[in-house]
Amino acid sequence: MSSKGKGTRAERELIHMFHDTKTWIALRAAGSGSTPLPCPDLLAGNNIRKLAIECKSIKARKKYFDKVEIKELIEFSTIFGAEPWLAVRYDNEGWYFVTPEDLEETKKGNPSLSLHVAMKKGLRFPELIGIFKQQKLD
Amino acid sequence: MSSKGKGTRAERELIHMFHDTKTWIALRAAGSGSTPLPCPDLLAGNNIRKLAIECKSIKARKKYFDKVEIKELIEFSTIFGAEPWLAVRYDNEGWYFVTPEDLEETKKGNPSLSLHVAMKKGLRFPELIGIFKQQKLD
Repeated sequence: MSSKGKGTRAERELIHMFHDTKTWIALRAAGSGSTPLPCPDLLAGNNIRKLAIECKSIKARKKYFDKVEIKELIEFSTIFGAEPWLAVRYDNEGWYFVTPEDLEETKKGNPSLSLHVAMKKGLRFPELIGIFKQQKLD
Repeated sequence: MSSKGKGTRAERELIHMFHDTKTWIALRAAGSGSTPLPCPDLLAGNNIRKLAIECKSIKARKKYFDKVEIKELIEFSTIFGAEPWLAVRYDNEGWYFVTPEDLEETKKGNPSLSLHVAMKKGLRFPELIGIFKQQKLD
């Protein structure tokens, strides 16, 4: 499956996860990554919170992000009034949700997220949507 | 130009109108009208308000809506925590914004909006986003 196809499939999976809660709903943005205006992959919301989400589905243990992508996610979220989130689906490990501040920087200054950091700092889906808050051990 | 192409062009025009305000931002939903889950054409937001918008661009003086489309717009808006709006762009007249309550019903029970009613009850873009409220004469 193409990388784009895998990404779209992951986005749809996440939309259904929000939909299944009955109290959240989400949509995929058209042309995310190809429009000249900042635009996240997904927007999810309930009556209280709005989440702007960049989605990634990867096989590797480490995900590298594009600096501009993160900058635009924050820009969009600030204007729209949403929380900026990165959703990374690691093969066989499932979804982890982190904020832009959770990302590490490579020596060249590119944002990255290892599975190790995702497991340490990231939230699982029920935590993200506030069903419960898991105790994190430092 | 196809009806779909005209619709997409109108949606893009509206997104740029929001973007030009600098205090609002909007995005187009992917596959609106073709996904099994309720989903508006556009979502716009600023720090305070969120608008779920169904867009239409028409040549005729009267627009007929699909009952299910209106029902799903309201359903999405209720869960997401957004205001439901219908944006109709009449050729040579520009955009009018109305709420589902502003729609009339045909004898067969289908929602419709005439240019006359749009002009009477609808808002223009600056009013929609709260730049000013025009005095309406009954």
